[in-house]
Amino acid sequence: MSITAASTLALEPVLAATDRLHDSAVERLKEFLRIPSVSTDPAFDAETRRAAEWSAAQLREIGFRAEVVKTQGHPMVLAHHDGPNVASAPRVLYYGHYDVQPADPLELWTSPAFEPAIVDGSMFKGQRGKRIVARGAVDDKGQVMTFIEAFRAWHTAHGTLPCGVTVMLEGEEESGSKSFEPFLKSHKDKLKADLCVVSDTGMWDIETPAITTMLRGLVYVEITLHGPSLDLHSGMFGGTLVNPINALASIIGQLHDAERRVQINGFYDDVQVLPDAIKKQWSTLPFDELEFLGEAGVKHPFGEKGYTTMERMWSRPTCDCNGIFGGYTGKGAKTVIGAHATAKISCRLVANQDPAKIFAALKRFFEDRCPPGCRVEIQSHGMSPAISVPTDSSWLRAAQRGLKQTFGKDAALIGTGGSIPAVGLMQRELGIDSLLVGFGLDDDHVHSPNEKFELACFKNGIRAHATMLAEFAGVKR
Amino acid sequence: MSITAASTLALEPVLAATDRLHDSAVERLKEFLRIPSVSTDPAFDAETRRAAEWSAAQLREIGFRAEVVKTQGHPMVLAHHDGPNVASAPRVLYYGHYDVQPADPLELWTSPAFEPAIVDGSMFKGQRGKRIVARGAVDDKGQVMTFIEAFRAWHTAHGTLPCGVTVMLEGEEESGSKSFEPFLKSHKDKLKADLCVVSDTGMWDIETPAITTMLRGLVYVEITLHGPSLDLHSGMFGGTLVNPINALASIIGQLHDAERRVQINGFYDDVQVLPDAIKKQWSTLPFDELEFLGEAGVKHPFGEKGYTTMERMWSRPTCDCNGIFGGYTGKGAKTVIGAHATAKISCRLVANQDPAKIFAALKRFFEDRCPPGCRVEIQSHGMSPAISVPTDSSWLRAAQRGLKQTFGKDAALIGTGGSIPAVGLMQRELGIDSLLVGFGLDDDHVHSPNEKFELACFKNGIRAHATMLAEFAGVKR
Repeated sequence: MSITAASTLALEPVLAATDRLHDSAVERLKEFLRIPSVSTDPAFDAETRRAAEWSAAQLREIGFRAEVVKTQGHPMVLAHHDGPNVASAPRVLYYGHYDVQPADPLELWTSPAFEPAIVDGSMFKGQRGKRIVARGAVDDKGQVMTFIEAFRAWHTAHGTLPCGVTVMLEGEEESGSKSFEPFLKSHKDKLKADLCVVSDTGMWDIETPAITTMLRGLVYVEITLHGPSLDLHSGMFGGTLVNPINALASIIGQLHDAERRVQINGFYDDVQVLPDAIKKQWSTLPFDELEFLGEAGVKHPFGEKGYTTMERMWSRPTCDCNGIFGGYTGKGAKTVIGAHATAKISCRLVANQDPAKIFAALKRFFEDRCPPGCRVEIQSHGMSPAISVPTDSSWLRAAQRGLKQTFGKDAALIGTGGSIPAVGLMQRELGIDSLLVGFGLDDDHVHSPNEKFELACFKNGIRAHATMLAEFAGVKR
Repeated sequence: MSITAASTLALEPVLAATDRLHDSAVERLKEFLRIPSVSTDPAFDAETRRAAEWSAAQLREIGFRAEVVKTQGHPMVLAHHDGPNVASAPRVLYYGHYDVQPADPLELWTSPAFEPAIVDGSMFKGQRGKRIVARGAVDDKGQVMTFIEAFRAWHTAHGTLPCGVTVMLEGEEESGSKSFEPFLKSHKDKLKADLCVVSDTGMWDIETPAITTMLRGLVYVEITLHGPSLDLHSGMFGGTLVNPINALASIIGQLHDAERRVQINGFYDDVQVLPDAIKKQWSTLPFDELEFLGEAGVKHPFGEKGYTTMERMWSRPTCDCNGIFGGYTGKGAKTVIGAHATAKISCRLVANQDPAKIFAALKRFFEDRCPPGCRVEIQSHGMSPAISVPTDSSWLRAAQRGLKQTFGKDAALIGTGGSIPAVGLMQRELGIDSLLVGFGLDDDHVHSPNEKFELACFKNGIRAHATMLAEFAGVKR
């Protein structure tokens, strides 16, 4: 056993408790899922608050001092457990969110979004298993409950936890996290910890755990090219003056070269070569790129030359046009030269790229190519850096040991193409690195109708968190 | 006086009648403008039909046999007046259109688009005058009313017209004219005439009349690039598959080289060099390109290298993107890779270019550059060849005499960048040349918010049509 002297509490009774508690844990998750805490829609504000109160009450039941802290937006749940009261014991901060995405389009749900249903489903390699279907099942209520239920098992078995534990549950993750940074700044002293554990990501597959070590960042801008002062007749004026749509399209067309490399000045300057160790580890993951793209109805990989689909997705920066409009966009024909044209453009960033620098270079890219008679207007819709979690820390190794004990397999170290701004903010404001260990699957329909969480994942997630907590307790700080 | 023996009806009482009728003529025009006959939008179909009925009723009031003829699209107004019943009298076919462009963007109108407003405006060389502001004010309802009111003046003064007159008003000029050619083919016998007069063009300036002898043609297409089968999360998929917006922008960007020459294969093959005589005549016209562009809020000429603004506008073909849309076009940020992107693209053609050939080459241009994983869909929104009107006919000389009597100045022989497909079709199907005499001004905001028609132009247009009709009556056939 890898539990060291620093923790004298045995894991076996804890795991036994997770088994005994399983049925009631599912009932508690259902209770949580019945609260429609849709943070983006003010019509649900009372429910969103109720979800915060409910989570705090859960934590109080198992020995936490929990409060629901007011913010400018939805409240933050903040809870503390002293743990074993051993000076050497580490303190672990757990992050999750109690808010959910809107459930629409409602008509595509096979059961009501906020009436959790346990249904049978095909799972893996022909196996079938039970899953819980509801909005928030995996994102993020089900995952939040994996660590809260792990704490409950420790509390049941030993009356305490092997580490000091702080829990922070956000209520605005699905609606812009506007209060998150101010909260971190004003609660620094209450958020001190040795590491942060985030459960909002996925496994490699239902049998293989994963630790997400790379998250791409984001720069999102809206660019408008202004030309003539009004929409003009294309017959009368066509050919004599600048057409902002053609001009904008031409600049967008120059964003990539024939090998799909982004042409923004200095774009790759700070991009690091993917370490051979990670590259090698990724190459061992069973990944069928045509199957992956096939889910999107696409038959052809397409991207930066010299990289695999997995590398492009996890480790390479991008520049994509997310929206474009200008001129006449109704039915049929209208012979106008539009007065302006607008594009929404975002860059996914990788570790070490500075969002502010990329924003400035993107701005300059358009300004430098703006033809005479046009004016560029650029508006930022937010930026966040990429996150790279150190892969050589004793905390990560502890998590790896805990996952291997639970699943009998090594955890895959993976990337994700998306962004979790909270992770970057905690690194910057609190100086704490995050360990991203989640138990979702690719087919969980996150943000879509019929979101689900496999009960096998829920159960293994609880056991894994219980085990990792024991491993963290043994890490020398 | 230039009224010859062929017409014994005096012009003076007709011109006097135009003066007496002026105020009521403005009221009739306002009534016409209040009908939102937007032909491209099916939501306005009933109104479009009402505009046809309204025009036919106007013509019946002044002695025409008028019918509203069904077509596959919007109806055609067809009206006949026998004129003086003198065998030697010529028959003149008048063409105009009762449909209008959509009014959007509505928020830029200073008064509602379909509630005509009479406002004061600066006119010319510091003069100020009244103008009528409404969608269709000059294109083409106001101009249609210049000849209908001229007929009314003749009818009031003499109870008849000095020539046989046929009026044909189209309801699809702003939406592709799909029914026009079949109508010409099936109504050849009812459309016999010695010449056609079209009032849908402009004057040189408010004091100088013009006859348009060159019109550019048009090929208008809608191109959609289809990529993934659904909108995708740009974090998860960005960089691994084709983005249809980026792909479409890139192809549009390739339509022109750095010297603004259109890169479509064979695009200039059939373009003729502008004859020196025309080039010379144009160079005598007082034209300030910066003043012209300044009206559009543009400070910089921009177009095909080696040509003047006037040449670019009247004698060179173009390729412009008239509209574009794809992905997320709402407020703020949404991190999607759109499933498709669409552009509306049109080419203005000059004499001798074959629209079908250009359409095929444009289609191939996009197909050849469509990246793997994308599919091109191309839809035609109509095509028409460029027109060149003979400048040595007795009809043209008659019109020149009529215009000189009205304005006291020679008419300029000009080109126009716009297209009037009807003119080419009448030449081909009926064997009739058109005389393009219009009374619009460059700053009339055609197809734009706050479209207007100077009341001075309206009044002079009516007088000019009344006078030209007298001159046509004197032409020996």
